[in-house]
Amino acid sequence: MQNFEFVSPTQFVFGRGVEEQVGQKLAAAGAKSCLLHFGGQSAVKSGLIDRIRASLDAAGIAYVELGGVRPNPEISLVRQGVRLCKERGLDWVLAVGGGSVIDSAKAIANGACIDEDVWTLFETKRVDHEVLPIAVVLTIPAAGSEASKNTVISNDELGRKTGYANNAHRPRLAFMNPELTYTLPEYQTAAGCTDMFAHLLERFFDNCEPVPVTDNLNLSLMKTVRTFAPVVLEEPENYEARANIMWAGMLCHQGLAGVGRVEDWATHGLEHELSALKPEITHGAGLAVLFPAWMEYVHELNPGRFAQYGYEVFGVAPSGDVLLDAQAAIDQTRMFFASLGMPTTLEELNVEEADIESMIPTLKANKGEPFGSFMRLTMDDARQIYRLAL
Amino acid sequence: MQNFEFVSPTQFVFGRGVEEQVGQKLAAAGAKSCLLHFGGQSAVKSGLIDRIRASLDAAGIAYVELGGVRPNPEISLVRQGVRLCKERGLDWVLAVGGGSVIDSAKAIANGACIDEDVWTLFETKRVDHEVLPIAVVLTIPAAGSEASKNTVISNDELGRKTGYANNAHRPRLAFMNPELTYTLPEYQTAAGCTDMFAHLLERFFDNCEPVPVTDNLNLSLMKTVRTFAPVVLEEPENYEARANIMWAGMLCHQGLAGVGRVEDWATHGLEHELSALKPEITHGAGLAVLFPAWMEYVHELNPGRFAQYGYEVFGVAPSGDVLLDAQAAIDQTRMFFASLGMPTTLEELNVEEADIESMIPTLKANKGEPFGSFMRLTMDDARQIYRLAL
Repeated sequence: MQNFEFVSPTQFVFGRGVEEQVGQKLAAAGAKSCLLHFGGQSAVKSGLIDRIRASLDAAGIAYVELGGVRPNPEISLVRQGVRLCKERGLDWVLAVGGGSVIDSAKAIANGACIDEDVWTLFETKRVDHEVLPIAVVLTIPAAGSEASKNTVISNDELGRKTGYANNAHRPRLAFMNPELTYTLPEYQTAAGCTDMFAHLLERFFDNCEPVPVTDNLNLSLMKTVRTFAPVVLEEPENYEARANIMWAGMLCHQGLAGVGRVEDWATHGLEHELSALKPEITHGAGLAVLFPAWMEYVHELNPGRFAQYGYEVFGVAPSGDVLLDAQAAIDQTRMFFASLGMPTTLEELNVEEADIESMIPTLKANKGEPFGSFMRLTMDDARQIYRLAL
Repeated sequence: MQNFEFVSPTQFVFGRGVEEQVGQKLAAAGAKSCLLHFGGQSAVKSGLIDRIRASLDAAGIAYVELGGVRPNPEISLVRQGVRLCKERGLDWVLAVGGGSVIDSAKAIANGACIDEDVWTLFETKRVDHEVLPIAVVLTIPAAGSEASKNTVISNDELGRKTGYANNAHRPRLAFMNPELTYTLPEYQTAAGCTDMFAHLLERFFDNCEPVPVTDNLNLSLMKTVRTFAPVVLEEPENYEARANIMWAGMLCHQGLAGVGRVEDWATHGLEHELSALKPEITHGAGLAVLFPAWMEYVHELNPGRFAQYGYEVFGVAPSGDVLLDAQAAIDQTRMFFASLGMPTTLEELNVEEADIESMIPTLKANKGEPFGSFMRLTMDDARQIYRLAL
């Protein structure tokens, strides 16, 4: 078990109707004003933004609105948010949406407290500055950004998509009402479940010894996602299923499922290049294609670890041959993602062999070489994994 | 799934040698001075207190020492701590020890910020005041007080032992070095493992519907404790086993293992009266006797829940008769505690039938009537459970 530090200070307010408490809880936490940050029109059309405006008004919290966050959020809107926070002296950032909106809010909350351009943080990774406190009304369970220390931002000008981690931008408040997820498009629900499952895989498969307290917790969350992902697709208004998925999505990326381990994150690195190349690719869909390919490529280094995962999460029956059991676990993983309607090949995402080489330079810039932990991957390994996924 | 709020702001510093960072981390968190609070002589003799003094000195943090916390910590020493904090203007409380020391520190941290006597908080349960920040160097994994919102304090004068919950006294910093637990007496290690397991049972068995995301996490922790409790007894200096137990002990009582559920806590209520009556009774030993008795008394209300627990934690083979399987799970629980060297009857704790009646009035005062959730218990039910445990 590796030495570790862990902190997750988010106050969770979970259940039916909790978005009505936004103003009151923000005021109790000392907020006077906020940037109200959101994405497209769905939160406006559904009336959610109106309810939040009313809640902020009732609590006497001033706000400035900035909508328009796109999937794979981009640095120019972040810069606009930073300017608004600085010019208006806003003291909180309130994100209403999913991972993209929250990631954008995190970047703004950092940028509002430094003199230089916010993108420099994604280059230097420094964490020695103040950050505006962040509150979240979650509408898409997937990225786990409502409690995580991570944000991922694209820079179109540079053709880069890069992560930045800072415990100081873990949200202070997260409002999680499973009912708000009833109307999510089916594809987005499925990609979200895939993303959360992938957050567990990245933590379970690394090159260190078992850490049973962490591994058991991780496997318990895999079982939960595996059980309820099909249910939320089949019955979008099943409150219990939506609630289990929403809470699991947070736990999958909060950090507890990996403490004491090294963690891997190679596959997320490979995927970020896909959606940097083609921003229309949903992160979860890219992961659904790449994770089984990565597993095929690396599993022989420690087939027992894959077999254990197969036994516990998919009920694979031990065959007596651990390599066969590992292969069965990989097959089950691919089938699980496919059963949710996720793609299984890069072809389905309109990525072809000729695209592979164009991703390698930025992959190397973002992840370094070698990267990953379960297997230390070179750029040539990366090429082969992309090819396996074609 | 019940609506809930959850917050656990503790920053964990986990691993070998982390107690050397106490001064530096406290200073980084803004501490100028602290009450250094501990128990008997073991922390002094082992040199731990000296190392912490050196770490505080090096960081320029002033401190006043208050040792002598006993098991089942008492309100008079708490009052002494409150006076010291007020008179010397101390701004943090640093607890070095197990649950008793941390519980005492929590009470002090509350009392130092109010005008009236600290015991009033245990009567009124009010939570509308400031609390001094608390740091913990954990030496006994058991109570989970290093991250929980609970403190339990005895008042010898009134013959009461009462809990008080406040999110504001969850420790800000917890230093957890598994090596510090190598020298714990065997009985204390065993009672600690029993206590953490009981914290999971209290959350798993209530009268609400399954909450799989929470229940799976809870069961995963039960498996971890069940696996490693025998190992730490057999091999007290096995770092990995001690580390798994230490981290599990925190998770068992932090709150995540019960979110979305009602929780029960009847058995803890029954046990508190035992150790109020006979302070020499270790909390975990009392729980080892009472939990199987409570299970025998209530399980027929929902035998399926007990059967599920038996299948997953003890590998009970389904017999086709859920009531038989529930009974098997209860038997396994009793055998598990006994295998750790815990008592199985009240007789072994020198409690006899004549003692039962004397516990009922304070039980009623502390818990109300009816109490518990899985089964709503009257005082007559309580008498019968105590009798089953004789």
